[in-house]
Amino acid sequence: MGKHTIFFHNAPSIVCTYSAAGKKESEGPIGSLFDYVLEDDYFGEKTFEKAECKMLSTVIEKVIKKSGYRKSDIDALISGDLLNQIVSASFAARDFNIPYIGIYNACSTLTEGLALGATLTDGGYMSDVIVATGSHFSTAERQYRYPLEFGSVRPPQSQWTVTGAGAAIVSRKGKGPKITAATFGKVVDYGVSDANNMGAAMAPAAMDTLITHFNETGRKPDYYDLIVTGDLGALGSRILKHIISQNGYEITDNHVDCGEIIYNIDEKEYQGGSGAGCSAVVFNSYIYRKLKEKELNKVLFSATGALLSTTTTQQGETIPCISHAVALEND
Amino acid sequence: MGKHTIFFHNAPSIVCTYSAAGKKESEGPIGSLFDYVLEDDYFGEKTFEKAECKMLSTVIEKVIKKSGYRKSDIDALISGDLLNQIVSASFAARDFNIPYIGIYNACSTLTEGLALGATLTDGGYMSDVIVATGSHFSTAERQYRYPLEFGSVRPPQSQWTVTGAGAAIVSRKGKGPKITAATFGKVVDYGVSDANNMGAAMAPAAMDTLITHFNETGRKPDYYDLIVTGDLGALGSRILKHIISQNGYEITDNHVDCGEIIYNIDEKEYQGGSGAGCSAVVFNSYIYRKLKEKELNKVLFSATGALLSTTTTQQGETIPCISHAVALEND
Repeated sequence: MGKHTIFFHNAPSIVCTYSAAGKKESEGPIGSLFDYVLEDDYFGEKTFEKAECKMLSTVIEKVIKKSGYRKSDIDALISGDLLNQIVSASFAARDFNIPYIGIYNACSTLTEGLALGATLTDGGYMSDVIVATGSHFSTAERQYRYPLEFGSVRPPQSQWTVTGAGAAIVSRKGKGPKITAATFGKVVDYGVSDANNMGAAMAPAAMDTLITHFNETGRKPDYYDLIVTGDLGALGSRILKHIISQNGYEITDNHVDCGEIIYNIDEKEYQGGSGAGCSAVVFNSYIYRKLKEKELNKVLFSATGALLSTTTTQQGETIPCISHAVALEND
Repeated sequence: MGKHTIFFHNAPSIVCTYSAAGKKESEGPIGSLFDYVLEDDYFGEKTFEKAECKMLSTVIEKVIKKSGYRKSDIDALISGDLLNQIVSASFAARDFNIPYIGIYNACSTLTEGLALGATLTDGGYMSDVIVATGSHFSTAERQYRYPLEFGSVRPPQSQWTVTGAGAAIVSRKGKGPKITAATFGKVVDYGVSDANNMGAAMAPAAMDTLITHFNETGRKPDYYDLIVTGDLGALGSRILKHIISQNGYEITDNHVDCGEIIYNIDEKEYQGGSGAGCSAVVFNSYIYRKLKEKELNKVLFSATGALLSTTTTQQGETIPCISHAVALEND
């Protein structure tokens, strides 16, 4: 066994998922699969931040309801988001009488959470946990870039932060696609400093984790029906395929990036979607359904995160990135 | 077994700790126990933020050296801090070729990390992990309150964010005080909205977790030689003792708060220390040494976190709080 990859021998399963997304996201290629679509980006709240929090609350509450569980069946909520101090997750957790484990690895928070949820349940410490993440275009823009009112022009290498959230129940005893292994990523920094070019910054981190996973498990890329990355976007995905090929691994035939498939091909989004909500809505709708219906039986899911802040960018730092992978398999 | 409390039957131990703190902290009652004292708050860097990151890097590197381990012996770094996007932890992680699990529950991040570290090692998924947290007075002031240059007057109920960091190695196989159980807290919000009165906001969260721990384990407060809270400060500690007594539990004789013992009694700090670095330096020096030398044999350590951000405060929200507890015991 390698040191970055851990195996779950009791094979905890994902028994239920729930996704909520914005109107724009619902008009994309997989929009019809979302459980819930927001009427507008305020979601009945006075601020975008409160709307983001309400999205997370909603998916947590609804996944419990959809699964037939009671709130008291859930042993922990593992959650994070992109806002400062992950306040959307923390304020959403306030609505539930459930132990709360706050996590943050930017847009790789979802797979970090699935890996920790699998550990807690596989090890017999807990029975059922919820993993929930999300993001909101308007809160991300004003926190990381410019307020929308500023009317900033977006460069062609940029991506569009997804307004959406997703929740999954990881269970020791239930039925569903199993989490069989996880590869925790390390921080990788190739020196990219353009906060508008996340795909280029994150591609090497995705490659590092995928290659580590292949080496430590002895599996080749074609072991998996699909290798899913989180939000590299179109440019980042091309970079990943190119550099991983240079290192002797071919994933062109079975790779898809959540950021590439969430929006229609449209000039305004340039490289596609990004944000913790991007992989959250795509995984918890499209990918999960394909696993559940056994159209896919082996999926490697490696969400990618850019670990910058506005302060580090202003202080001239480059962008450290990370990617955590989980292997999902049907019996 | 209760639902919030998990037990570690393989009893992972804390085999080594390392603490680094500022000059001011080194002049307090336990200052002589710190492994490393910064000459000044810049720590040779150009910004306070870079200094905070360097403190974390330093304690991680030094705890490995002090323990006699090699870097390659460490299976994961579990880390978080108080800066936006936990950049101190993420940038520190960049210096190490180790899987990185970013976490955030404000000043309860340390016990959240110890609980997750214990889970990963106890369950046999990993052998040795480092848990590291920290904070810096000057970065916290400018992010959460006012830049120091503003010369803002501090109200008497305020606390002083500790400049310091600590790291601990949690090991499946080594020798040292054992982590025998963890109680994950839920979010508690009693409606306090004064960001200068964290002790009052956090005391109910500490009480909730302590009472949950006592109920689920069947232990009474006097089972423990010491019950340690993270950074309630003097006022918050008095509130905790009062409200937990009203609920039938007496902890007056064996409770201490890290924020109360880190500074000399001095008007300028008012209620004492706070910040993720507060419990990090006190636990990884004073408390750990007392456990190691068997002056203490049973310690319940419940660090407390206030899950606010400047945005939530500006939007009129109250302060949700949380506390995670770990039980530390000698054989």
